[in-house]
This record gives sequence, C-alpha cells and structure tokens, in this order.
Amino acid sequence: MLNLYFAPGSCALASLIALEESGLAYETRRLNFANGEQRSPDYLAINPKGRVPALVTDKGIITENVAILAYVAQIAPAARLAPLDDPFDFARMQAFNSYLASTVHVNHAHKGRGYRWTDDTAAIEAMKAKVPQNMGECFALIEEKMLEGPWVMGEQYTVADGYLFTLASWLPGDSVDPSRFEKVSAHHARMLERPAVQRALAAERI
Amino acid sequence: MLNLYFAPGSCALASLIALEESGLAYETRRLNFANGEQRSPDYLAINPKGRVPALVTDKGIITENVAILAYVAQIAPAARLAPLDDPFDFARMQAFNSYLASTVHVNHAHKGRGYRWTDDTAAIEAMKAKVPQNMGECFALIEEKMLEGPWVMGEQYTVADGYLFTLASWLPGDSVDPSRFEKVSAHHARMLERPAVQRALAAERI
Repeated sequence: MLNLYFAPGSCALASLIALEESGLAYETRRLNFANGEQRSPDYLAINPKGRVPALVTDKGIITENVAILAYVAQIAPAARLAPLDDPFDFARMQAFNSYLASTVHVNHAHKGRGYRWTDDTAAIEAMKAKVPQNMGECFALIEEKMLEGPWVMGEQYTVADGYLFTLASWLPGDSVDPSRFEKVSAHHARMLERPAVQRALAAERI
Repeated sequence: MLNLYFAPGSCALASLIALEESGLAYETRRLNFANGEQRSPDYLAINPKGRVPALVTDKGIITENVAILAYVAQIAPAARLAPLDDPFDFARMQAFNSYLASTVHVNHAHKGRGYRWTDDTAAIEAMKAKVPQNMGECFALIEEKMLEGPWVMGEQYTVADGYLFTLASWLPGDSVDPSRFEKVSAHHARMLERPAVQRALAAERI
C-alpha cells in the first residue's frame, strides 16, 4: 500500500493528483504545518528533510515531487501519465517538472519562507517584494515557451499537468493575476474539470 | 550528435561527467558567463531560461541536470548509469538529484546570485552570510542519511555521483570545510580516480 504524506496548500498536491489519476490504491497522512508537525521526530524519521511530499511504499520512502511523479507514472503504466517509451519525451517532461521544483517553487518560497536563506528580518521583507516579478516572469516563460497545450506535453496528459496546476494556483497569493496567462488559465480550467483533480482537491480539504 | 552547452565552474559539469561515462559521442559548446553569453539572443534561442546545461539532441533540446542525467543513462543503457529496471531505485536516484537541484544548488546560489531574489543590495549581502550554514546542513544530511557508499546509490555507480561531486566541489568556496564530511570526502577522492571524471574536468578547463 502507498501512503502519501502531504500538507494542505503545499506542493504535495501535485503528487496527490498523480495518485488519483493513476488508479493505484493509496492512503494519505496529513501534516499540520501550522503546528510544525513536519519538524516532529516522528516525521523526520520518515523524511529527514522535514518537507512534503513523502511517499511511503513497500520498498521504502520516496521524497521530492519530481521523483514521486515519475515513479507513479512508471508503476501505473496503464494510466499513461508519462511518455514512458520515449526517453526524449520523458526527459522533456522531467525538465518541465524540474524547472517547477528548482526555479518556480523556489521563487514562490521567498515570499513565506525567506528565513531559509537569511536571519536578517529586513532582508526577509526585501525578498518578498520581488516575488510577484519573479513568479510573473516564470509563468510568462511557461506560457510562451513551455506549455504546448492542451496539456503541458501536448496531446498526452501527464503528471506534469498536476504539478503546473498546483503551482499556478499560488499566483493570486503571490500578487500575480493569472488572467495575464491565457494558456495557463485555460489549462487550469481544464484541470478543474477532471474528476481525479476534483477528488484530490476534496481529499486535501477534508 | 549530442551537443552540450556548459560553462566552466557551473553545475553543467554533472552532465559533462555523465556524457563522458556514457561512451556516447558528443561535443561541447562553452559559454562565457563573465561576458553574459548565457543571456545572448543566440543562446536564449537554445535555452530561453538563460542557464546551463542544455543538451541539443537530434530530436530537440533538453535542459535541467535532473532531466539530462536520466536521459543520458536511458539512451546508454550499456553504461549502467542508473537503476533503469527498478522504478523504486530509479525514483530514489531522482529524489537525490532533485534535492541537489532544488535545495543544495539553490542554497549555494544565494552567495553569488542573490540578485535573483531581491534588488536590495543590503539584503543580497545578508543572504551571503547564511550560505555556509545552509550548505553545511545540506551536506550533513547527505553524509548521514543519503550517501550510501561507496557510491550515492550503494554499489552501483550512477549519474547521481557526478552531480554530488560537482556540488561538493563548491564547498570550500562556500566557506565549508569538506573534511567535516568523511563519506562525502571519500566519495570525492574516489570520483577523482575515475578516468571519465578526469576527462570531464580536462574538457571543462580547456
């Protein structure tokens, strides 16, 4: 049995959507970030990084969205959640996911988690000011150069779509108007129509 | 023919090492970061993110180390550069690479590229102060929880080893003494003995 550790409103929604789309049996464990539960000894034994998502499998634990998303696609090939038979297309999907993880999510984190990179309170405030610009530039690049449409990879829906959906949902909170990005907005609306996405959002809220 | 765009001293060394280990035919194109060549129109046509590495293939262009490393391993299976037949082990390798890309490299970047996240010169200076602590904590985690030995994944050498080697080589410049990390240091020395690593380092210097 698979068990996904997640927190509401976090990037773990991407892995939750992938699991819902996969048809695999899984359970969830919710962490309360407001209580600092991700830093509890019990959770650090699961993921010593103190972050979500973490996927507990019969073989062991996998962390990082980029790894979990490809893993779910690989162990549920019938769901066709990644271009598994073509290394080039698989790499393009991985490049997209890695960009979200290492650039877009990081830019977003400078709004609420600037303390990761400095102890200076004035500097933490200064970082917040650039978040709208950085997130806007990232999504302009996604809109113009990366999102093929109707899905991230073109005609095939993949795990990258749930990841883009998750980070795009942060734009209003980052003071970026999503309507600036026509293709991203249409993608978001398309995602909201998928039953698996609706189930994942409901599971996050409960 | 594969063509790798890289810059000396950058994280693209990880992809360069993977290509050397793979036995695949490839060429390199060097960018001069000091001249801002990564922001030139010619290079932005290759990689609109203005970053390295970028791997030009017959099918198109792949960016992001995480994606390029898995791709090289997949198209050169005889070199055994990743656990390709086991989705769980492949995911563990990907989780390691994704951690390097989205946490360790990002922490390092706050020393020399703080301008990405703020326009405030005092804040840029403030960020630099925390880099030794953050890089030290990351490598303590790698040492204690992630690096199995002798290679990252245990007995099998993988593309993750070249990536760890690349980021570990930044520690002295980040004011972190690598000798604090016995396993990481032994790994580094082991890597330097590999002919492919020696060739990659030579190619970077030329």
